[in-house]
Amino acid sequence: MTKYAIGLDYGTLSVRGVLIDTKKGEVVASDTFAYPHGVITDYLPETTQKLGTDWCLQHTDDYLTGLKTVVKSLVRQAVDVDIVVENIESIGVDFTCCTVLPVDKLGQPILKKESYKDHPHAWVKLWKHHAAQKQANRINEVARERQEAWFPYYGEAISSEWLFPKLLQILEEDPELYHEMDRFIEAGDWLVWQLTGEERRSKSCAGYKAMYQEHLGGYPSTDYFKAVHPEFETVVADKLATEVYDLGTAAGFITPEFAQELGLSSKVVVAVNNIDAHVCVASTGVAQSNTMLNIIGTSSCDILLSRETDLIRGTAGLVKDGAVRGFHAYETGQNAVGDIFSWFVDTQVPEDYFVKARSKNMSIYQYLEELATPLAPGESGLVALDWWNGSRTPIMNADLTGLIVGLTLQTKPEEIYRALIEATAFGKRMIIENFEENGVAVAQLVFCGGLPHKNKLLNQIYADVLKKPIAISNELETGAKGAAIFSILATDPSLTLHQVAHEMKLDEYLETYKHHEKSATTYDKLYEIYQDLVKLFGENQNIMQKLKVAQKAVWSEE
Amino acid sequence: MTKYAIGLDYGTLSVRGVLIDTKKGEVVASDTFAYPHGVITDYLPETTQKLGTDWCLQHTDDYLTGLKTVVKSLVRQAVDVDIVVENIESIGVDFTCCTVLPVDKLGQPILKKESYKDHPHAWVKLWKHHAAQKQANRINEVARERQEAWFPYYGEAISSEWLFPKLLQILEEDPELYHEMDRFIEAGDWLVWQLTGEERRSKSCAGYKAMYQEHLGGYPSTDYFKAVHPEFETVVADKLATEVYDLGTAAGFITPEFAQELGLSSKVVVAVNNIDAHVCVASTGVAQSNTMLNIIGTSSCDILLSRETDLIRGTAGLVKDGAVRGFHAYETGQNAVGDIFSWFVDTQVPEDYFVKARSKNMSIYQYLEELATPLAPGESGLVALDWWNGSRTPIMNADLTGLIVGLTLQTKPEEIYRALIEATAFGKRMIIENFEENGVAVAQLVFCGGLPHKNKLLNQIYADVLKKPIAISNELETGAKGAAIFSILATDPSLTLHQVAHEMKLDEYLETYKHHEKSATTYDKLYEIYQDLVKLFGENQNIMQKLKVAQKAVWSEE
Repeated sequence: MTKYAIGLDYGTLSVRGVLIDTKKGEVVASDTFAYPHGVITDYLPETTQKLGTDWCLQHTDDYLTGLKTVVKSLVRQAVDVDIVVENIESIGVDFTCCTVLPVDKLGQPILKKESYKDHPHAWVKLWKHHAAQKQANRINEVARERQEAWFPYYGEAISSEWLFPKLLQILEEDPELYHEMDRFIEAGDWLVWQLTGEERRSKSCAGYKAMYQEHLGGYPSTDYFKAVHPEFETVVADKLATEVYDLGTAAGFITPEFAQELGLSSKVVVAVNNIDAHVCVASTGVAQSNTMLNIIGTSSCDILLSRETDLIRGTAGLVKDGAVRGFHAYETGQNAVGDIFSWFVDTQVPEDYFVKARSKNMSIYQYLEELATPLAPGESGLVALDWWNGSRTPIMNADLTGLIVGLTLQTKPEEIYRALIEATAFGKRMIIENFEENGVAVAQLVFCGGLPHKNKLLNQIYADVLKKPIAISNELETGAKGAAIFSILATDPSLTLHQVAHEMKLDEYLETYKHHEKSATTYDKLYEIYQDLVKLFGENQNIMQKLKVAQKAVWSEE
Repeated sequence: MTKYAIGLDYGTLSVRGVLIDTKKGEVVASDTFAYPHGVITDYLPETTQKLGTDWCLQHTDDYLTGLKTVVKSLVRQAVDVDIVVENIESIGVDFTCCTVLPVDKLGQPILKKESYKDHPHAWVKLWKHHAAQKQANRINEVARERQEAWFPYYGEAISSEWLFPKLLQILEEDPELYHEMDRFIEAGDWLVWQLTGEERRSKSCAGYKAMYQEHLGGYPSTDYFKAVHPEFETVVADKLATEVYDLGTAAGFITPEFAQELGLSSKVVVAVNNIDAHVCVASTGVAQSNTMLNIIGTSSCDILLSRETDLIRGTAGLVKDGAVRGFHAYETGQNAVGDIFSWFVDTQVPEDYFVKARSKNMSIYQYLEELATPLAPGESGLVALDWWNGSRTPIMNADLTGLIVGLTLQTKPEEIYRALIEATAFGKRMIIENFEENGVAVAQLVFCGGLPHKNKLLNQIYADVLKKPIAISNELETGAKGAAIFSILATDPSLTLHQVAHEMKLDEYLETYKHHEKSATTYDKLYEIYQDLVKLFGENQNIMQKLKVAQKAVWSEE
């Protein structure tokens, strides 16, 4: 009897769902739901409450409406092809992370309370809410002073995107709300709580975004938090749950109410929530050391598994069992990849390029790729620093910005486009060299995500710059399918991720890009120049930071 | 009886002519002729002879056809308003410089000889022909080694655009032609020779572009030239004329043949040729020390008069009587100003900006100016280095390139546009501070040329960055009118430029921009950042030069 699993992939703008069979991994149904409120950055909905700079919020209603709409659609499609609903055995969820919200002790979002709905801090803080930089600075400062043992696991830099900076921001800016709320929780964990009635938080989310290191005793100590802020001393006991759960385990069964509403059996197992990037290790079959998984879309997230625990500066997180049980998983990444190319296309490409692309029945990206592909490395004389959205790793600094050098009156848009792709490849090389200089080998790469399937030029440039084979994952539904696979594991503890992925042939790749010697030689030289630029602009007190200071001074006057 | 003068302004793409009355300076007729061959950069016309990288040629026929077409049109227009042709007393010519060609002893261009027409070196080398960099390097090297007295008058850097590098290129690359030719001459001097039958070269051209310093004995010594190249020893005697003539003096009367062909009196005085930029001192009434004239169009050329001779590094030339008799004239400038904005508009501005501009009945420049004007200095977080076409002064280095830092996913085209304008203003400030640090004060600026009349934002940004009053010249016909004024001086040695310009009210300006304290304070900070960037990228062996080396290596393989 064929069994089925549902995977739900909660992204920044929409939730994508698939129904797959549990053996071959074939997608038998799929659907997407775009969040009606999208990303809230200017005003709180239905209020005149203006938000500050760098705020990014979401609405929990969008998540629940998405859940219901997508799952009902999957069930309907399943029934249409004569699948027996009882054979759908599990649901797995992955979610953008760290996307967090305050709730009461029953799990009800504070933003649903009439008296708090005009409090910006009551709303879901999306991962890219960057308004807690001050709090992140404090958290880092105290960790550095106290030489906290967990600090090196995060490259000695906690991001403003993570849980404790966001929570400290609430304490400092809306103490009334802070004291009102019972829990501060990842949206994915919250959704699992809604589905099961059980607050079973993901160890992976806690590990990567809330400084949780199991072998060091879990979360940082009360002494540490007290040093950060007197009222933060008991923050873990007050606002979090001390228990966390492994990926690929069951959070519980679906509640009878949800089973009925969604049209599912009440025996459906709901898996522990996972991170939207990390879930891709399942769908791309990367369950081994020394193969770096790169999820390349608007930004890039890299996962590298290791049997050892080598603390490496310049990595964003190292968490045992953080992606695949039995491995330590490093997380690294770049804040903007596809986002840079979108910015370029939206703001920097002239009218006649669009006209020509249309006349050739091409997208503007295809047309730019066609023009940029025949260019030789180095021919344009351009090199860029890919910090359009700051640098995540190996330099953790949100105040860094993009730079292009080598512009002349002869510079063409396709040359800049290619230089931007190259810049992201150089950024990746810096991440990989940082691993290798610290004794962790990267033998090959697997690419998945939105870009590698669409942009052959990008894949070849990365191969030439990195001088390593790059396998392109066959899988297009990496997020939702990964979530479904983790839910299959949750139904049977005897299964391993490697087994399931291998049986589904997810470790067989579409194609593998290899470097061309001549291009690689030129890129070695250009990479040296990239490194020179990194030295000039990546250090503290550099020109980019001076510019940010000047810019912030102007903004604060307005 | 009202008298009249003709001014002919030979630009890069066309010749502009005006007929003015000699007292009030009113333009009574004008016309323009675009060169049919334009700028020749790919193939020699009517041949399959491909040109090398950085070549820029022109055809002498274009100059003569332009002369005839424009002057005949001016005469026709004059007659139409009942001007007696005999009252047209003089012709003045200004020309792009250093634009040079080989001719025989009668002044016939070598390119007109059947046997040489497929020799690229037989053609006119336009000022922006940049293929003689190797020769310029040699000329600089020998001058430095020998500590040539004239060298500091050129900021210790001879440009590849100038006469001797271009001539040495012929000797090295086409020795047969080098030996065949009798003269190598500025196109403007050649045109005066054609008009008068007399080879009377301009002291200003010789001073600025051919290392001629009267008080040091004229051109560099035979010993120097011998050290550059054995066959170059007698280059001056062989290929140049040792006599040069002052601006505002007569080269001679028009030949009877030309008088007849153009419909002019044979008593018409032809003035000594002038440089297209320098001629603007007349039409803008800048005939005094400490007022810097800025001709701002595709590039920017600055003239600063002084009674003293202070040698200043970072100036392109210092020539006694080089612009106005009785003054030493410094030349400085920026290789690209309007050209950068054109590049930006042509290659970097998205489709919807053009659509919006059209819907508002604005040019794209006007629309960008409308969007960029309300931005506060520093608001965008961007700073650029304005070296899209290298840096002329104070850093003489053609291998420098443009740079933008501070780019983010939020950066808008109008922010970049404004940053580019600001960058050119910072470049100007560096030029001015270089003067002031060396004891030559710049009290105010006068702007003329294509941009200041069209771009109020540019004028205000310059005032805010420079913190000096900027007067905008009323005059639109600065080139051709300036040439005409110098020809008026040539008819009567008792006249001074100051008198004539003052009588024509050319020293009364359209408006004067003054700086706003708040903007100036912010720009002081941004200028510090610009200077930091100059330190990082302007020194020898910098990143930009490494990039150029890598780029040239790729090109040489292709």
